[in-house]
Formats: sequence, C-alpha cells, structure tokens
Amino acid sequence: MENFQFCISTNVLFGKDQIENLPNIVSSYGKRILLVYGGGSIKRTGIYETIKSLLAQYEIHELGGIAPNPRIENVYEGVRICKQQSIDIILAVGGGSVIDCSKVIAAASCTEIDAWQMIINRMPVSEALPICAIPTIAATGSETDAGAVISNLATNEKRSFFSPNIMPKVAIIDPTYTFSVPAAQTAAGAADILSHLFEQYFVPQSTFMGDLLVESVIKTIIKYTPTAMAEPENYEARAQLLWGSAIADNATLCNGNKLCPFGVHGMEHELSAYYDIIHGVGLAILTPRWMRHVLSDATVERFARFAQNIWDIACSDDKYEMANQGIIATERFFKSIGIPMTLSELGIGCEHFEEMANHAVETEGLLYAYVPLTKNDVITIYKNSL
Amino acid sequence: MENFQFCISTNVLFGKDQIENLPNIVSSYGKRILLVYGGGSIKRTGIYETIKSLLAQYEIHELGGIAPNPRIENVYEGVRICKQQSIDIILAVGGGSVIDCSKVIAAASCTEIDAWQMIINRMPVSEALPICAIPTIAATGSETDAGAVISNLATNEKRSFFSPNIMPKVAIIDPTYTFSVPAAQTAAGAADILSHLFEQYFVPQSTFMGDLLVESVIKTIIKYTPTAMAEPENYEARAQLLWGSAIADNATLCNGNKLCPFGVHGMEHELSAYYDIIHGVGLAILTPRWMRHVLSDATVERFARFAQNIWDIACSDDKYEMANQGIIATERFFKSIGIPMTLSELGIGCEHFEEMANHAVETEGLLYAYVPLTKNDVITIYKNSL
Repeated sequence: MENFQFCISTNVLFGKDQIENLPNIVSSYGKRILLVYGGGSIKRTGIYETIKSLLAQYEIHELGGIAPNPRIENVYEGVRICKQQSIDIILAVGGGSVIDCSKVIAAASCTEIDAWQMIINRMPVSEALPICAIPTIAATGSETDAGAVISNLATNEKRSFFSPNIMPKVAIIDPTYTFSVPAAQTAAGAADILSHLFEQYFVPQSTFMGDLLVESVIKTIIKYTPTAMAEPENYEARAQLLWGSAIADNATLCNGNKLCPFGVHGMEHELSAYYDIIHGVGLAILTPRWMRHVLSDATVERFARFAQNIWDIACSDDKYEMANQGIIATERFFKSIGIPMTLSELGIGCEHFEEMANHAVETEGLLYAYVPLTKNDVITIYKNSL
Repeated sequence: MENFQFCISTNVLFGKDQIENLPNIVSSYGKRILLVYGGGSIKRTGIYETIKSLLAQYEIHELGGIAPNPRIENVYEGVRICKQQSIDIILAVGGGSVIDCSKVIAAASCTEIDAWQMIINRMPVSEALPICAIPTIAATGSETDAGAVISNLATNEKRSFFSPNIMPKVAIIDPTYTFSVPAAQTAAGAADILSHLFEQYFVPQSTFMGDLLVESVIKTIIKYTPTAMAEPENYEARAQLLWGSAIADNATLCNGNKLCPFGVHGMEHELSAYYDIIHGVGLAILTPRWMRHVLSDATVERFARFAQNIWDIACSDDKYEMANQGIIATERFFKSIGIPMTLSELGIGCEHFEEMANHAVETEGLLYAYVPLTKNDVITIYKNSL
C-alpha cells in the first residue's frame, strides 16, 4: 500500500432541495457573488430563477456561456469581473467545465499572475476565492476535487491544474438538477466517470480494498446509466450516478493504490483540444482500443479480473480469452448507450495524429502510464479508433 | 437515496514515516502542545521518543494513562491543563479512547461549560482546540470522524458526543505504529470495525452503491485480520485494516443509506459501562445473538445477501437457511480470531440485565433501530449471550 495524502474538505449537501441552504452558505462569505454558468440550460430548468430568488438580497454578477472544454478566455473574463467587483464568492452552476473554469478564476483573481501562465507553470495557489459548486450533470466530479482542465484553442493546448486551495468549499448536489440532461450527455458523462475509475483500476499496483471499492462504483455506473437515459427523472438512478461521479474522481476509492498517468485521458485531451469534441465521447472511443493495445502477459491478469468482476465473464484458464471478452463487453456497453464509437463518425481524420501524439507523450506523461505509451503507440491507438 | 450532509475535513497523511511532517503541522497552530496518550505503549514502541525529538523546540505538556472507555475525569484533567497552559494544539496518540478523550477536551477547553454537562445535553461546539490524531490501533476510526464516546463510571453511563468542530484537523496514520498491537487487541479492533460496517449495512434502506462499498470493506477486514494477527509486522495487512477502520466509521461508504441507531452498539455501551470490558469484544459477542434475534421475514433477504456476498454461502431458495449459515459464519469468524464469545467467559452474569436493558432502550434509541428492540428484546439478547 502506497503512502498518500488525502483531504476532501468540501462540505457536501446532497439531495433534493438542498439549494434552500444557499443563502446561509453565501452569507458566511460575503455579499458579492459571481454566478458562473454554461449555455443557459440552468435558465430553462429553473435553477437560475431559484438561485436569483433565494439570493435576492445579494449582489450577483454573471459569467454565462462557459462551453465544454472551457477556454482560457472565459477565465480572463471571470478574473476581470472578480477584481473589478470585489467578488466574495463564486457560485459555479453547471458541468465540469463551469466548475473547472470557476476554480481557475478563483485562484487567478487573488494574484497578479496571468492565468494561463499560472496553469502551464503549475504555480502554487496561496489564496483563492471560495467556490460553491452546484453540478448539473454527473460526469467529472469536479465539485469535490482540487483539479481543473482549461483549453487554449489558440495553441491547441488543454492543460490540467491542481491545488487544494481551489477545491470548492461547498457542493450542493441535487439529483433533480440532472433530470433534464439529454440521453447523449448522460452517456458521455457516464463514460467520463468510468474513465476516472479505470484510471484508478489499471495501475501498476493496487490494494485489495481499493480494487473492490473501484469495482463497486464501476458496477453502479454501468447499472444506472441506461436507467437514467430511459427514465430521465428516475431519482435513484440520477442520484447514484451523481454521487458516484463525486467519489470516482477524488481518490476516495483508490487511496493507497500506486497511481500513474492514464493513457486514455492524455490521448483524449489532444482530441478535444484539436477537435473540441465531448470529453466523455473521446474517452469512450479510445478506451477499448487502448485496452486491446496494452493487453499483454503483463496486464492480462488484470483485464481478466476486470472481465470477471465487472462483466460477469466466466472464469477460465484462458485469461486472454477472458480479457478480450471483457474488452468486447466494454465496447458493447458504450455502443449500447448510444456513443458514436469511431473518430470518423465525429469527422476526425488522421491529419493531426502525428503532432497530437507528440504532444500527448510530451505533456501528458504517457511514458509513465500503466503501460508506457510512445508516440507510435498513440498513433496506432488513434488509427485503430478511426 | 436519502439526503445527506458530508464533510470530512481531516487532512490525512497516511503511511510509513509520515510523522516527519509533524513539526510542520504543529508549527501552523502554535507552540504549546498537549500530548494525550494511553497506558504507555507509545513509550515502548518508540513513538513517544520520536515525537519528543521531532518537537524538541516546542512546549509539550502531557496527559497519559487514558484507559479504554475513557472517563470524564480524564477529560476534566485535560481541560485543566489546556486552560492553565494556554495549549495551542492537542496531539492525540493512541486508540479511539485517547482520540475521543482529546476531542472532548478540545471542545471543553474553549468554554466555561462543564464537560459532562456538555456531553449529556448534546451542546453545540462553537470552538475547539485543533487536534492532530495519531492512531496506534485499527479500530474506531476516531481519527477521521466527528464523534467521541465518554464514560462516567460514577453513574454507569457511556455517552456519545458529536460535533464537526471536534474532528481532528490532521491525522497521521502510520501502519507501522500498529505492528506492536497484540493479537487479541487486533481482533477486538477488527470486531469494532466490522460492527461499524454492519451498522451501515443492516439499515431500513440502502443504495446499490452503498451496499457494494460496505461489503468491500467488510471483506477487506475479514481477509486481513487473521494475517495481521499471525504476522504482526505485515505492512499491507496493517495498512488495509487501518485505512479500512478510517473509512468504515465516517460515512464515506454509506452516504445515501437511511441510517438508524444500531442495536448492537447501544447494547454494548451498557456492557462496557457496567463491566468495563473491551468494546470490540462486547460487540463481537452480541452480534450473532442480535442477528438471530432480529432474523424474520422482514430481514431475511438482507441476511441472505450478507451470507452470499460476504461468506460465499451458495444462493438457494431457502433464504432462512442462507441467513443462518451467514450468522454461523460470522460467529465462527469471531471465534477463529480468538474472541471469547460468551459473556460468562468475561465474568458477566445476569444481575444487571434489567437495568442495563432499560437504560439502553431509553438512551440509545433502540426503539428506532433497524429492527426496533424493546427492553425484553435486549434482555433476551443479553441472556442468549451468556
């Protein structure tokens, strides 16, 4: 069991109507709020109105229109507002992009350092504005973690950034806020959650307990994703996906495992940096191709266990057969929830594979992955995903 | 899925040699330390010397001799020192009793209210001294939770107390500190952990994910307890038990389950309040008797699942048979790890059962348990445990 440091200080209020606690939460931080949100779905669903009415006594500034794969320009705009308006607390209402964007705004608003420089130089954050996160989709689990991913389309870069000081102080997690998430986005979110879990499961060394815990949440996501797609207002399904996403992403389950960069995540970052595709979709497409590519005598036991414990593939002496059945089941699952499972379907060709592969290996630490990936490995996996 | 609030703000430093971070941790709180510990095992194992040498620049006051089932007198003594010496931080090095005792000292040192009055009136804690907890046994998981249990032998009362403000700020969890725990105490600690897990599992309503997570840790404790007893310096076994104990006790696993008072815990509190027996031993003795007593058409499905998933009892149409096999397996497990499985072996007779049962029902909420327990139920379970 590896040494670890673990601290998730976010105060989680989970469940229907927890939003009623919002005025109490905000009042402990101040009067001036920056409300960050995405494409306006929070207006259609009524969350926006609820927040405005609950916080009628407060000064609310707004930063809407945060797109998936949030851009550094969004961050700059948020920082400008926070500084000009002396914002006391950021209210991040949306998916991972909104919450990630808010995290970097929170940090960059308390310094004179340029936000993109802060990210690429992985600068420490000594101070940040408090964040109250209200997720509206089960996906990244950004509401209870210390990370953010920001894109710079000018340079085709997508970079992650971490600091314990950007972790939300409070998360109001209400499953009913995800009732309106369309089936396709529910599926993409599930792929994102599963990818976080695979990241903790396909590692050089894991613990007995860590493996069981990660498998528990993988099984939960696989069980409830089709339910949530078929019955969008099924509270239990939405709730399990949402809480599953929160604990899938913040090391709760895998403490003590020996972690390393996850090949699929790094390769996908390039895809969405170049083509602005949905993160979860890119992850789902790459995952089975990555699994096939890294299957070897060194990994076959793990993939066979995965097949048996997750997909109920019967135990047999032929571990490769078991492993392959598990990979096929994984691919079938993603297809069954309607994810387009080739890059071609997304209009992506091989024109940038060379530079994307170069970039992934250089910046995403793929040489230190569970199975180290060279530039040629990455190109092969991209090509197999066409 | 039930609504919940969840915040474990403790900064956990887990693993061998994490103690080296102690000076850094302490220095952020101040210069004057109260070192709370138990019967002196920390002197035999060298932890005491390590701490003294790491903190040579600090003013250390000591409160040693905290016994299992910590007494209110210990709390009074700690509060006196904290107030007189203007203590900045409490260093709690020991088992659950040391950490629990430190929590109440931390709270009572910041008020003029009498500590026992604070406990029995469940008074809110607005301020408490910071605690750095260093557990030396895998058992209560008190190092990452907000609860404490204190006994008053004068009144034969054992009461629990909760406040988010008494949760340790930091926990240094080093499995090597548990290498010297004797086999019998390792077993009693495991029984304590298992009991916390049963408390989350035998509930009126649970979630798909919650059940899998709780079962994961139950299986881990059952796997590693015999290993840790046979090979006291097996790092992996000690580490899994220790981290298992931490997440077994603080709701990490069961968030969303509908919780209620746990009959066994309440009944055991009376046993140790009257007879000062080891908490884990009392829990182990009562557990299978409680299981048999509450087995009914309403609970048989749950006990059958428990039998199948935890003890690999084959699935069959006869759920009662499955359930009973699971109960027998549970009892056998406790016996196999050397726990005396009758009250008689501890010299306990039926002389106080009547008043103990009365007290348990009145103060431990047993009428609101998974299966409500009346005074007569409790007496029967005690008698069946003789």
